[in-house]
Amino acid sequence: KNIVLLPGDGIGQEVIAAAKEVLAAISDQFNHTFTFDKQDIGGTAVDKHGTPLPSQTVEACKKADAVLLGAVGGPKWDQLPSHLRPEKGLLGIRKELGLFANLRPIKGFDQLLHASPLKEEIVKGSDLLIVRELTGGLYFGKPSERRNNGNSVVDTLAYDRYEIERIVDKAFQSARLRRKHLTSVDKANVLESSKLWREVVEEKKTAYPDVTVEHVLVDAVAMKLITNPTQFDVIVTENMFGDILSDEASVLTGSLGMLPSASLREDGIGLYEPVHGSAPDIAGKGIANPLAMIMSVALMLRHSFQLEEEANAVEEAVKAVLKDGYHTADLKIENGQLVGTKEMTNLVVERLS
Amino acid sequence: KNIVLLPGDGIGQEVIAAAKEVLAAISDQFNHTFTFDKQDIGGTAVDKHGTPLPSQTVEACKKADAVLLGAVGGPKWDQLPSHLRPEKGLLGIRKELGLFANLRPIKGFDQLLHASPLKEEIVKGSDLLIVRELTGGLYFGKPSERRNNGNSVVDTLAYDRYEIERIVDKAFQSARLRRKHLTSVDKANVLESSKLWREVVEEKKTAYPDVTVEHVLVDAVAMKLITNPTQFDVIVTENMFGDILSDEASVLTGSLGMLPSASLREDGIGLYEPVHGSAPDIAGKGIANPLAMIMSVALMLRHSFQLEEEANAVEEAVKAVLKDGYHTADLKIENGQLVGTKEMTNLVVERLS
Ligand SMILES: CC(C)[C@H](C(=O)O)[C@@H](O)C(=O)O
Ligand SMILES: CC(C)[C@H](C(=O)O)[C@@H](O)C(=O)O
Repeated sequence: KNIVLLPGDGIGQEVIAAAKEVLAAISDQFNHTFTFDKQDIGGTAVDKHGTPLPSQTVEACKKADAVLLGAVGGPKWDQLPSHLRPEKGLLGIRKELGLFANLRPIKGFDQLLHASPLKEEIVKGSDLLIVRELTGGLYFGKPSERRNNGNSVVDTLAYDRYEIERIVDKAFQSARLRRKHLTSVDKANVLESSKLWREVVEEKKTAYPDVTVEHVLVDAVAMKLITNPTQFDVIVTENMFGDILSDEASVLTGSLGMLPSASLREDGIGLYEPVHGSAPDIAGKGIANPLAMIMSVALMLRHSFQLEEEANAVEEAVKAVLKDGYHTADLKIENGQLVGTKEMTNLVVERLS
Repeated sequence: KNIVLLPGDGIGQEVIAAAKEVLAAISDQFNHTFTFDKQDIGGTAVDKHGTPLPSQTVEACKKADAVLLGAVGGPKWDQLPSHLRPEKGLLGIRKELGLFANLRPIKGFDQLLHASPLKEEIVKGSDLLIVRELTGGLYFGKPSERRNNGNSVVDTLAYDRYEIERIVDKAFQSARLRRKHLTSVDKANVLESSKLWREVVEEKKTAYPDVTVEHVLVDAVAMKLITNPTQFDVIVTENMFGDILSDEASVLTGSLGMLPSASLREDGIGLYEPVHGSAPDIAGKGIANPLAMIMSVALMLRHSFQLEEEANAVEEAVKAVLKDGYHTADLKIENGQLVGTKEMTNLVVERLS
């Protein structure tokens, strides 16, 4: 299996190194061969190549079986004109590879629940998966431009029916592998795009009779995620709604430093990245938490390589390390032991052997 | 002062009756004359007139000094075609009256903080005002339509520069009357409209040197509202972002049944409504909480009539009632006393005399 590594910016470099070590342990243990090809993206790519997404990065990713991304962005590049912003690299690679389905599983770890801003009785037991449409909608629609000498502006929320169909199918399929409940999020009382979205969900649901479906308005979901997060299983929604709701949901369990994500297309090719950002303030200090990246490796093993046993082994190793009380500086575990990026990675690797 | 009452649907009827009683007490106490004109909106208007926004309602509101709205919507009208949906009445009257500035103050009441889903140490002391643009952006932009025989769809997020300028001015002015901190929310790393939004805020801020300004991305704000709500004072944002974030924020303090809102235009004409909905399940039972409606009356006195003393009197009366332990069925106060809509209204009126 050929994997492209995109460390990107900030702590991206350090956590990608951790991913590589975990994959080395997996290949020893389960007899696989992974080859790696490191490429530039984000601010690092701007510095080296003058663009956040060099064409050789795109070419390498197109030939890969999967891509691992660290993080992009940082204050150094914040003032650059829009086409040179590190985020453009991320948006660009998603679009170039056609990664329309962003999966974000959010599940608490018992040892970390105390760090949740929510009361324990509210958040305990929450285990949800946000399925966000990633290559259409408001973040990609055209026109997106100034008009009237810059005195007005438009962005466009556009969808083709097939784009909605494929993400809704992905969400139904995901729900089948879980608790079989799907919440479709829209603003169908106002937006025409949401009405089409709701129609597609209604059409599709006959093909998944074992999955229960509800439609909830986006503003109501923003409330319910906080007041009753355990009511959700799989949530599916448009790109921008998904951006907001998945970040909202990511802080519920107190485990932001633990959350992985997968961005997939139909054939299983995918890009895997931690939900946390590039954390420029702690970059290079050896203290970054590698576990979200390592959990992203597990998602890659599962979704792109169909290596379910290997994926579970990685996830169990992470759980075991936490259970033994080890944590990085972003987390706190009572009577636990503080470790750095490398030590944490070694602890996971040990438990894989 | 001529006030149009729009009870609307569900518990709207009951809470509007409470508003009238409170205004009667205020006029006795402070020697004012309020005249009332009751009109139909929402599902009730669909049933009586075949449209959620009859033209006579629009005419009456245009002549009024202020409008009080109960709530619109309910399962009875959920299956109607889109132009007959109760919500269209609400969107329509906002647009007809040009109510571009939606103000939503969110502040906890000590007696109710225990009902917050957040830990007390996180939520305690939060006191924020969300200023949402209400007549532009994604919820009103054209085109908003199906294309290609229904196989694709677009909505449009459109703003004229002056629309952004006036809401940003309103937000700066509001911040001046509070803790002088403004958080402008956008997605300037992706949306062209957000870039214009950010430019306008940067231009305007020189006119308000006493107010500190920060720009935060919408996804980050969705997180920070939960992890650290006390960091915010005034938040200003586009219509749809504001819809999602203000509902998210409304559940933080455990006081959803207490939250008022004001929708204003430049000359001070405004529409005032509770943030909670029409609650069809408890409608007609005499148990609805009238306090959010009564707090909306206070906002009307302040923003449309410049009656600051009277507004304060209403707010103090509400606080005093809670302090004495009275609560409706949606709230809980330890060792408190459960009362219905009328009794709660009387308790507030007593404290006004
Ligand atoms: C960096 C940005 C463009 C990106 C997005 O909004 O898609 C990020 O917020 C995310 O959620 O992955
Ligand atoms: C009913 C609906 C159209 C409305 C809106 O989104 O503006 C409501 O959610 C609100 O926030 O007042």
